[in-house]
Amino acid sequence: MQVDILTLFPEMFEGVFQSSILKRAQETGAFQYNTVNFRDYTTNRHHKVDDYPYGGGAGMVLSPQPIFDAVEQIKQKHDTNPRIILMCPQGETYTQKKAEQLAQEDHLILICGHYEGYDERIRTHLVTDEISIGDYVLTGGELAAMVVIDSVVRLLPGVLGNQESARSDSFSTGLLEHPHYTRPAEFRGLKVPDVLLSGNHQKIEEWRRKESFKRTLERRPDLLEGLELSEDEKEWLKKWQEDQ
Amino acid sequence: MQVDILTLFPEMFEGVFQSSILKRAQETGAFQYNTVNFRDYTTNRHHKVDDYPYGGGAGMVLSPQPIFDAVEQIKQKHDTNPRIILMCPQGETYTQKKAEQLAQEDHLILICGHYEGYDERIRTHLVTDEISIGDYVLTGGELAAMVVIDSVVRLLPGVLGNQESARSDSFSTGLLEHPHYTRPAEFRGLKVPDVLLSGNHQKIEEWRRKESFKRTLERRPDLLEGLELSEDEKEWLKKWQEDQ
Repeated sequence: MQVDILTLFPEMFEGVFQSSILKRAQETGAFQYNTVNFRDYTTNRHHKVDDYPYGGGAGMVLSPQPIFDAVEQIKQKHDTNPRIILMCPQGETYTQKKAEQLAQEDHLILICGHYEGYDERIRTHLVTDEISIGDYVLTGGELAAMVVIDSVVRLLPGVLGNQESARSDSFSTGLLEHPHYTRPAEFRGLKVPDVLLSGNHQKIEEWRRKESFKRTLERRPDLLEGLELSEDEKEWLKKWQEDQ
Repeated sequence: MQVDILTLFPEMFEGVFQSSILKRAQETGAFQYNTVNFRDYTTNRHHKVDDYPYGGGAGMVLSPQPIFDAVEQIKQKHDTNPRIILMCPQGETYTQKKAEQLAQEDHLILICGHYEGYDERIRTHLVTDEISIGDYVLTGGELAAMVVIDSVVRLLPGVLGNQESARSDSFSTGLLEHPHYTRPAEFRGLKVPDVLLSGNHQKIEEWRRKESFKRTLERRPDLLEGLELSEDEKEWLKKWQEDQ
C-alpha cells in the first residue's frame, strides 16, 4: 500500500513510522509512505498556504491551490485512483469497519490541516472521504492521520506476527475483551480468579465469554445494539437487568 | 503540567512532541513530559515485561510488577497525586469534555501497552482512568497517548496563540463548524457563495449559523441530542424534517 501524507509538519511522522510494527511493515514491503509538504506547491511569492476567511472572522483558512496541485501531482506520479482523505473534526467518525475498508485500497492520500480551516472547495471537489478519529479537538490532523494509518496497516496481509494477530481484539468481535491475568498467581495480596487456575477449559471459556459480555454491558452497552445474542447472553442480559 | 508516559517505545514520541504547538508549550514551561520504559523496572533476570495468560490462550499479558513499580517511583519522585491513565480499547470513550477535565490536573501518568493485554490487577488496583480514543484497533497505546496529550496541552493557559485559539472549534460549541472560504473568489470555476462577499455582517452571521446547524444535522445528528435549540434552529430542524 502506498500512503501519501500532505502536511506542513512532515517531521512529526518519522518517530512513529520507524517503530515497531509500522517499521516492520515497511521492511517487508507491505506499506510505504511519503510526506508531502504542500507549502512546496504554492504559486504565490511568499509560499503562503492560508489566507483570511471571506466574510470576516478570526482564524485562517487553507487555500485550495496548493492542496489541489499537490494531490494532482501525486495521482499523476502513481497513475492510481486513490482514496483522498481529509482529516477533520466534521468528518465521519472513524471505526474499525472503516479501517477494514481502507485496508482494501492500494493507495491512500491523507490531508492534514493544522489549526486552520480548509477552504470548502477542497471538501466538495477534491476529497473522497472526510474522517474524524473522535469527538475532541487536536492541534492538527497529523496525529489523526497516524492513527488511521496504524489501524489500516496492521490489517494488511503479513504485517502482524502470530503473537499479535492471535489476540482477539476488542471491536473485531463486537464485544470488549475479557480480563487477562498472568503470573504471579498472587501479587501484593491480589489473587488470580480460581477458575483460571482450574485447568477446566470449558469453565475457563465460559468465564471469559461471560466477563467479556459483562464488561461490554457495563461500559459500552451501545456496542450490543444490533448484535445477535446467544441464548447464554440473553440469559445474562436478563439477569443483569433484574439486578439493576 | 507534568506528563509521564510508560511505554516500551519511547522513541515514538520525540517527532510529535518536538513540533508545532507541543514544542512551544514545552518552551513556555506550560508542559513537560518524560518517557519511562517500564522494561527498566523489571525484577526478573531477562527483563521480561509480559508472560503467558493464566487459563491458556494466544497472546501475551503485561505483568503487574514493572508497571506498579514504575508508577510508584514516579509518584514518589514528584510527590503528587496524579491521574493514572490506562490507554486501552475497553476504556471510556475519549471526548472534549474529558480533555477539559484532564487539563485541570497538575500531573498525568499515561500507561501504553502494545499488542499485549494488561494484567487485570493493573486495571483494578493501580489506575484512576481507562481511556479509549475511539472504536478501532491500534498496534499500541502510544498514538492514543499522544492524542490525549495533544488535546489536553492545547487547553492549558497560554499555549495557543491568538490565531489558533480564536477558531470556534467543532465540539466546543456543540455543533460542527460552518464552511470556510478564502481567496480566490473563483477557483477552477468554483465560486465563493455570494453572501460571504456581500459585506452584510448580519446575513453572513446568519448564513454561518444555519450552515453549521445543517452540517451537524446531516452528518452528526447525535450531537444535537441534549442541546438547547434556539427558535431559528427549531425552525430549521422542522423544515429539514419536512424535506426528508
